[in-house]
Amino acid sequence: MDNYILKIDCDDAKGLIYKISDVLYKSDLNIVKNDEFVDSDKSRFFFRAIVSGDVANGNLVHKLEEVMPKSAKIELMKKRRKKIVIMATKESHCLGDLLLKEYSDDLNAEVVAVVSNYDYLKELVDKFEIPFHHVCHGGLSRLEHEEKVLEVLQNYEFDYIVLAKYMRILSSSFVSHFEGKMVNIHHSFLPAFIGANPYKQAFERGVKTIGATAHFVTNDLDEGPIIAQDVINVTHEFSWRDMQKAGRNVEKVVLSNALDLVLEDRVFISFNKTVIF
Amino acid sequence: MDNYILKIDCDDAKGLIYKISDVLYKSDLNIVKNDEFVDSDKSRFFFRAIVSGDVANGNLVHKLEEVMPKSAKIELMKKRRKKIVIMATKESHCLGDLLLKEYSDDLNAEVVAVVSNYDYLKELVDKFEIPFHHVCHGGLSRLEHEEKVLEVLQNYEFDYIVLAKYMRILSSSFVSHFEGKMVNIHHSFLPAFIGANPYKQAFERGVKTIGATAHFVTNDLDEGPIIAQDVINVTHEFSWRDMQKAGRNVEKVVLSNALDLVLEDRVFISFNKTVIF
Amino acid sequence: MDNYILKIDCDDAKGLIYKISDVLYKSDLNIVKNDEFVDSDKSRFFFRAIVSGDVANGNLVHKLEEVMPKSAKIELMKKRRKKIVIMATKESHCLGDLLLKEYSDDLNAEVVAVVSNYDYLKELVDKFEIPFHHVCHGGLSRLEHEEKVLEVLQNYEFDYIVLAKYMRILSSSFVSHFEGKMVNIHHSFLPAFIGANPYKQAFERGVKTIGATAHFVTNDLDEGPIIAQDVINVTHEFSWRDMQKAGRNVEKVVLSNALDLVLEDRVFISFNKTVIF
Amino acid sequence: MDNYILKIDCDDAKGLIYKISDVLYKSDLNIVKNDEFVDSDKSRFFFRAIVSGDVANGNLVHKLEEVMPKSAKIELMKKRRKKIVIMATKESHCLGDLLLKEYSDDLNAEVVAVVSNYDYLKELVDKFEIPFHHVCHGGLSRLEHEEKVLEVLQNYEFDYIVLAKYMRILSSSFVSHFEGKMVNIHHSFLPAFIGANPYKQAFERGVKTIGATAHFVTNDLDEGPIIAQDVINVTHEFSWRDMQKAGRNVEKVVLSNALDLVLEDRVFISFNKTVIF
Repeated sequence: MDNYILKIDCDDAKGLIYKISDVLYKSDLNIVKNDEFVDSDKSRFFFRAIVSGDVANGNLVHKLEEVMPKSAKIELMKKRRKKIVIMATKESHCLGDLLLKEYSDDLNAEVVAVVSNYDYLKELVDKFEIPFHHVCHGGLSRLEHEEKVLEVLQNYEFDYIVLAKYMRILSSSFVSHFEGKMVNIHHSFLPAFIGANPYKQAFERGVKTIGATAHFVTNDLDEGPIIAQDVINVTHEFSWRDMQKAGRNVEKVVLSNALDLVLEDRVFISFNKTVIF
Repeated sequence: MDNYILKIDCDDAKGLIYKISDVLYKSDLNIVKNDEFVDSDKSRFFFRAIVSGDVANGNLVHKLEEVMPKSAKIELMKKRRKKIVIMATKESHCLGDLLLKEYSDDLNAEVVAVVSNYDYLKELVDKFEIPFHHVCHGGLSRLEHEEKVLEVLQNYEFDYIVLAKYMRILSSSFVSHFEGKMVNIHHSFLPAFIGANPYKQAFERGVKTIGATAHFVTNDLDEGPIIAQDVINVTHEFSWRDMQKAGRNVEKVVLSNALDLVLEDRVFISFNKTVIF
Repeated sequence: MDNYILKIDCDDAKGLIYKISDVLYKSDLNIVKNDEFVDSDKSRFFFRAIVSGDVANGNLVHKLEEVMPKSAKIELMKKRRKKIVIMATKESHCLGDLLLKEYSDDLNAEVVAVVSNYDYLKELVDKFEIPFHHVCHGGLSRLEHEEKVLEVLQNYEFDYIVLAKYMRILSSSFVSHFEGKMVNIHHSFLPAFIGANPYKQAFERGVKTIGATAHFVTNDLDEGPIIAQDVINVTHEFSWRDMQKAGRNVEKVVLSNALDLVLEDRVFISFNKTVIF
Repeated sequence: MDNYILKIDCDDAKGLIYKISDVLYKSDLNIVKNDEFVDSDKSRFFFRAIVSGDVANGNLVHKLEEVMPKSAKIELMKKRRKKIVIMATKESHCLGDLLLKEYSDDLNAEVVAVVSNYDYLKELVDKFEIPFHHVCHGGLSRLEHEEKVLEVLQNYEFDYIVLAKYMRILSSSFVSHFEGKMVNIHHSFLPAFIGANPYKQAFERGVKTIGATAHFVTNDLDEGPIIAQDVINVTHEFSWRDMQKAGRNVEKVVLSNALDLVLEDRVFISFNKTVIF
C-alpha cells in the first residue's frame, strides 16, 4: 500500500484536527504520522500527515474541502522521487555534492539537468552523465539571458530549481515563474552580510562565526523564507579566503539538508517564513 | 479558560488520532497543539496535546479509556508550576543557575528544598531563602544515609528531584521511590566516560569535544533515558581542570534545558529512551 | 616565582620573535607559553607570552623598547585577579551568572560594584554583598545621567566595565573614557539585527538560528571589536519570547567566555577586530 | 622565496624558543608564523614555524640539533602538495567528497590511488581518472589480504593513507608499516560506541547527539590519537538509518577537516593524543 503526503494550511479554527482525522478515518485511511502547528501570530493552521491506505479511490481532497475552511490549501501527493534542475556558475562544491548524493542514492531526487552561465562545470557534470547547458550571459541583457535559460528549462519536467551557487541576480520576472519552487544557498547566516562577497564582509567585520543559509527565492533578494542555517567558528587567523574555504563545507551541508526537507514535502511557506515538520 | 496537557501512550493501532480527536471534539474541547509519534521499533504510539476548554466537567480520561487500547497510559494535567527538590554536593554552578532562574521567574518550577551531603552550599541557598538540609553521610552506610534523606524529603510535596551535581551513587532502593521523577546531569556526553571524573578520562583520551548529558535516573547508573545533550570543542591546550571549567557552562545549560522540557510535560519515557515533543 | 604576561603589538618586521626571545633569555626569564600572529592585511605583529622568572629586577620593558620597532606597544603585567564594575538594567541572567561565578571562585575577577539605571536588581546584588548603585535616568539628559554614573565610578578602582544587558545607549563622550575597557553583550549574532529588540527582528525574519555577541564598546554602536559569538537553533515554533528565553543561556555563556579571555589578557584590539590567543 | 615548515618536539627545557629563533635569525631566515605548546603533563615541548628565506643553503637541521635537547625530533619540510592513497569499502560519501575536493583544487593533496576490498566504488573513481585497485578479501586470511594490499601500495609513492570508511580491521602488522601515516574516520564521537555499527548502538542507547571522529590509526582499534570530532543533534524520530544518513555529512566534513590539518603539517602525535597548531 502506498504512502501519501497530505499538506493542509488554512486560517485557524476550532476542531480542524478532528475534522481532518474524521474524513481520513471514514475513508479507511490511517495516519502514519502527523504534525501540526498554529501560527498564533497570523492565526494560521498548518498540518502535514503521512497517510497510508487506498487513497486513490476516494475523492479525498474534495471531502476535505467540504469540511475545512474556505481558505484551506490542500495538497495530496504520492510519495515520489522529485525532479530537480540545478543552476550554478563556477564553484563546484554544492553542485558536486548533490551530484555525488544522487549518484549514491542519497538524494531523494533526480537531477534532470544542470544550467550554468559558464562552461567551467561542464566536465564535472559530464562525468555523471547529466545534461549540461551552458547559457552564456555575455553580451545579453539580464532579461535576454533569462529568456534563453527559460527556453532550456522548457525542455524539462521538474519540481524544483536549485541554485547551487548561481551567482547572478534573477529578475522578478524569472522568479515569478518558480514561486516556492526555487531554493538558493546564500553564503552567510542571513540577515548578516546581504549582498556581494559575504566572506569579505565577514572578514572585515571581524566576526567569530560564519555561516550559510538555504532559502526559497523571492523577489526580495536574500529575503526569501529561510529553510536551514548553520555556522562554524572562525578566528583572527582566517583570511577571507580561509573563511570561504571553510564556508564551503557549511554551504553544501546546509543546502543538502534544506533540500532533504523540501524534497520530502516537509516545508510550508508562510509569508516570508517557513514552517518545517 | 485553562489549558490542560493530555499525554497518552499505548500500543500502536489504526485510527488512534481520530479516536482521540473525536472524544475531544464531542467534549467541546479544542486542541491548541498536538504532537504524535509512533515508535515503529516498539510499535508504540505517543501523543501529547495542549487542550483548551471546560475540561473539568466531563470525565475526559474515562471517555478516552473507553476508545483507546487497554495498554493506554493516559495523563490529563492542568498546566501548573511544578515543585522540585534539588540535591547537590559541593559544586554550585548547576544549583546556582537553577536558583537564579527561579528567582528571575525563568524556571517553570518552585524549588521547595535543597538537600546536600555537605554544608558547602548552605550559604548560597540561604541567600535565596530556600530550606537547605545538610544530611551528612559521614559514618553512615549508603542505605542509612538515604534513609535520612528520605526522612527529609517526606516533609515536602514535590514533582521532581533534580540531581544538580549530586556526587553520590544512589541505591536502587532509593531510585525506585522516584521512578521517572529524578533528573540527573552527567558531566560527559554519554555513553562516553561513564564513571568517575569524566573530564580526567576525556583529558587522558585526548578528545576534541567534551559534553554533558541530562537523563532520568534509573537503577542502571549513567544508563537512564537521555533527555538532552550538548558538547563544546576543546584543544590540546586544555588541562582536565580547564575542561572541567569549560564543561560547567555546558552542564548547567543542558540541565536547565532538560528541566524546561520535563517541567512542561513534554517528555515521555519509553524503556531506556525518551520521546520529546 | 611569579608569572608575568607580556603583550606586544607593533608593525611587522623581520626577526621580532628572535629579538624578543633574545631579551628575555639574556634577562634570565623563561617563556612558559607564547602566541604570535601577523595580520598580513595590516602588516601588524601581535605577540603574547607568559614569562616566569625574576621580572621585577630588570628593566624589561625598556630593554624590549630598545630592540623593537618604534610603533611597539609593550605591556608587562603580573598575573592578577582583575576588578570589574558591572552595569545592568533590569534583566538578571548575565549579571546573576557573573555574581554566582565570582562567588564560586569561577570568575577571574572581583566585582567591585554594580551600577543600574533601575533598582530592580538591587535585591539580587545585595544577596552577594556587593555595592549596588541605582543611578536613575528619569528626567535627565543622556549626558547628565552619564555624568552621575561617572561620579559613582570615580569611587572605584577597576580594570573593566561589563555591560551585562545595560539597555541604554552610551554617548561617545562616556565611551571615550573607557576605550578598550568596556565589554558589552549584544543579543544577536552581529552584524545581524543591529538595534532594538533583536529577538523580535529575528522572529519576524524567520531565521533558524539566533545568537549572541560579546564585543568591546566603541563609538560605533554594535560595531565594536567582537570577542566571542555563539548561536543556537530555533524553529517555527519559537515565538519571539521563546527566542528571548532560549537566547538568555547563549548571552550569559558568550559574555562569560569573552570575559574569561579578556581577564586573562588574551585579547588584543586591532582596529575594529580582535586578535585572541 | 619558498616557505618551509619546521616542526620540533622534545623534552621541555628553558630557553628553547630563544635557541630556535637564534639559529633561524643567524641563518638569515624569517619566522612567518610560529606556534608553541608545552605539555606540562608529559613535560614535552612542541614547536611549529613557517619559515621563509634561503633554507636550502644552510644546514639548518644540523644547527638546530646542536642547540636543542638530545630528545629533539626535528623536521624541516618544504611546503608541498602531499600524495595520498585512499582505502574504502562500499560507501562513497567520504571518498567522493575527497575526489571532488581534489578535482576542484580544494584538497591540498593528490590522490594517487584508491584501494578497495570491493569493486562497488570503481565506477565512481574511474570518473575522476584515478587508479582503482580492487583487492578482494574473499577466501583470504586477514594477513594474506593485507599482503596483497601492500603489494599494490608498493607501486605508489605517498605520504598518507586515508581510510575513508574502510570497513575491515587492520592487523597490527599492517598498521606498523604506516605509523602516524594513516588517518581513519570513525562514525561515532569516540570513545562512545566503539566497535560495530555505532549508529545502531546510538539508536539503541537513545542519545540526542551523534558524531564522527577522525584519528590516526594505531594498533589499539578506535584508540588512536584523535585529530577532529564533531556532532549533530538527533531526536526520537531518527531511526538508526536516519542517523546513518545524517551522520554521513558529519563524517565527510570531519575527515576533510582533519586531513586539511594533517596535510599542512599542523599535527603532532604525542602518545595517544594530538597537538594541533
